[in-house]
Amino acid sequence: MLKINLNRLAKALDDISSFGATARGGLHRLALTDVDRDARQCLIGWCRESGFKVTVDQVGSIFATRAGRSAEAPPLMIGSHLDSQPYAGRYDGTVGVVAAYEVMRTLDDLGIETNMPIQLVNWTNEEGARFRPPLIASGVFAGVYDLDFALSCVDDAGISFGAELKRIGFAGTVRPGWPLSGYIEIHIEQGSTLERNRCPIGVVTGVVGIRDLIVRVTGEDAHAGPLEMHRRRDALVGAAAMILEANKVGLDRAPEARVTVGKMSVPSNSHSVVPGLTEFVLDIRHPRAEELDALEKALRVSFERIACERQLEIDFREMWTYPPIEFDEKLRILIDNSATRLGYRSMHLPSRAGHDAWNIARIAPAAMIFIPCRNGISHNEAEHAELDDIAASAEVLLSAVIDYSNSGAN
Amino acid sequence: MLKINLNRLAKALDDISSFGATARGGLHRLALTDVDRDARQCLIGWCRESGFKVTVDQVGSIFATRAGRSAEAPPLMIGSHLDSQPYAGRYDGTVGVVAAYEVMRTLDDLGIETNMPIQLVNWTNEEGARFRPPLIASGVFAGVYDLDFALSCVDDAGISFGAELKRIGFAGTVRPGWPLSGYIEIHIEQGSTLERNRCPIGVVTGVVGIRDLIVRVTGEDAHAGPLEMHRRRDALVGAAAMILEANKVGLDRAPEARVTVGKMSVPSNSHSVVPGLTEFVLDIRHPRAEELDALEKALRVSFERIACERQLEIDFREMWTYPPIEFDEKLRILIDNSATRLGYRSMHLPSRAGHDAWNIARIAPAAMIFIPCRNGISHNEAEHAELDDIAASAEVLLSAVIDYSNSGAN
Repeated sequence: MLKINLNRLAKALDDISSFGATARGGLHRLALTDVDRDARQCLIGWCRESGFKVTVDQVGSIFATRAGRSAEAPPLMIGSHLDSQPYAGRYDGTVGVVAAYEVMRTLDDLGIETNMPIQLVNWTNEEGARFRPPLIASGVFAGVYDLDFALSCVDDAGISFGAELKRIGFAGTVRPGWPLSGYIEIHIEQGSTLERNRCPIGVVTGVVGIRDLIVRVTGEDAHAGPLEMHRRRDALVGAAAMILEANKVGLDRAPEARVTVGKMSVPSNSHSVVPGLTEFVLDIRHPRAEELDALEKALRVSFERIACERQLEIDFREMWTYPPIEFDEKLRILIDNSATRLGYRSMHLPSRAGHDAWNIARIAPAAMIFIPCRNGISHNEAEHAELDDIAASAEVLLSAVIDYSNSGAN
Repeated sequence: MLKINLNRLAKALDDISSFGATARGGLHRLALTDVDRDARQCLIGWCRESGFKVTVDQVGSIFATRAGRSAEAPPLMIGSHLDSQPYAGRYDGTVGVVAAYEVMRTLDDLGIETNMPIQLVNWTNEEGARFRPPLIASGVFAGVYDLDFALSCVDDAGISFGAELKRIGFAGTVRPGWPLSGYIEIHIEQGSTLERNRCPIGVVTGVVGIRDLIVRVTGEDAHAGPLEMHRRRDALVGAAAMILEANKVGLDRAPEARVTVGKMSVPSNSHSVVPGLTEFVLDIRHPRAEELDALEKALRVSFERIACERQLEIDFREMWTYPPIEFDEKLRILIDNSATRLGYRSMHLPSRAGHDAWNIARIAPAAMIFIPCRNGISHNEAEHAELDDIAASAEVLLSAVIDYSNSGAN
């Protein structure tokens, strides 16, 4: 029976969570800050101590390799990210890295030699909280972004990604992107499907499609007093009607659709000015591409009707579309079988958030294991995952790693 | 027949509008900036040239006095303000000052000696666009604000009102606030009632009551993807429902009520975060105090119902209330009669915006004359008033000034 060391895993999680720990038990560890550097150095220290070969690529991602029998087989990569959102939780990302490290140590403990090398990864700037876009380092690895584009991204203070990499000593020399036999990432669900189903292991079927549109509503600025209300062309009232409609359209297409307005601006922003301009970002998510298109179309039609009724102008600008992707079937089956063999209940569910696995799925067989997080709360200091669930996912990963690395796949 | 000099008035308006003129024919003259200083110096130059005695008070308001027969009678004050909103029009405020100056020059031309002195005023920082609150100098004059409070107000860059007064050379020594026999201010309507009624002269009945509440809606931040939509507690969706309701409640109480949300913020402001917090300012206006209270009550009840239905918390914080005021009846009749005698159509209407006359009405008989502005557009470079209408208002003011200053009123 495969078992990881629960106490050792718990200690590793505690230790690495001290870098950027907040007073309320959360984590504030933005990419390439001093505390991110400290956490990175801690991880490298562990891996070197365990005898794994550490390399850092040109976007600062850290790789630690446990050699396999085969000299030619590309590695099976496992891991996640150590950076966090502002004042967030200590589980999002970090559990994936810590569990991967525990898996590699357990392989050592058990004296297991795998065929392909096993390679732990910590991706730089997964969250995109400091440098936009998110998932940038795995994006460069997978050929989605150019290296130069990534290095020239700047934070709100105008400091570049490249400059910060150098400052914290993580501007590596290895060119990102090499053949992989596969990729498996453990992550908290950030939703409550597993919790409601009292299920410790989620076999992630894929990542839903995500499309973001910038919606600009134009009316006419007016004084809040003199002009008769029926003569107003109030862009904020129009936007309010659209936000309600977006919410309704999303709810009508439950349980799969997600429609959100999370970012908006009112440029005039004065208590005594009827807003003549409002901009907001409409975020649409759906596991099926054709439904994503249908959702967008329905929303555009509704918004245009609302604009017309209120004598407003509207225009849409696409920020980005990430089409839905399916994770590798063989890996999913392997994970599912591992869970069953170990006596853990599992269920299949899609990821409704972007993850580095999403980028890597473009260049290698990829999969994810989700674990429950309390009340589905994430990106929040109150984020919590049970240690038993983290341990279960590490055991499932360990089992899958052994099976896959010896399968001769890829 | 009383006549002002149309060409001279037009030239004065053109000349003083050159300080802060924008490329699109508007005006950008924030209080106590260099261009405000230039406009002030221009006004003082005119007044001294005409032999009027100029004084500047401790909040930088400029007074120019044309002596009367009586040594004891307090002055009849006329004027408005030279500061503007950002990228606004050249009529709001400025026409009131220029017309007042033209009235005083015409009194000279006609050799008319009034009983009470006539005192032109340019109030500092009427707009409140640079230093909050608006109407600050007339507020100090009327005892609404302390001098120290006014001098310590800071702009967005942290520069104080007092420091800027000194820098531009307008930190006067005269203590604000002295007895007035009366106060009359010419201003553009900033609405379209006069224009629609093809009426050049508005006799302003008073200023509506204005109450501003800060409304904070609290739900819970969540990731825009994983959490099921029906489990969200989306503060922005709640705020959107409240903004629509506010607009509906205002429209239902046409034509007197105004309800506006012009300022709002979404602190999380990320495309992928369901907002857990939204704040907005609710601006309510009504000519009758009891209706203002009823409006607020109706809105609070509706908002609380919306919050409850959506599992959100809500709280209200009053920013300020300005109770409705009525202008002096004798002055209103005088203005109305002057218009009739001069052959100008007039109508009675309330002001739905704050004006310095509002503060002065607390300490002296006060009134306002409105003139039409095109399409009711104001606080906008497209703001426009016809020169004939400005001239008409100056003639009505001239007539009212002669009648009132000789009436022995006080």
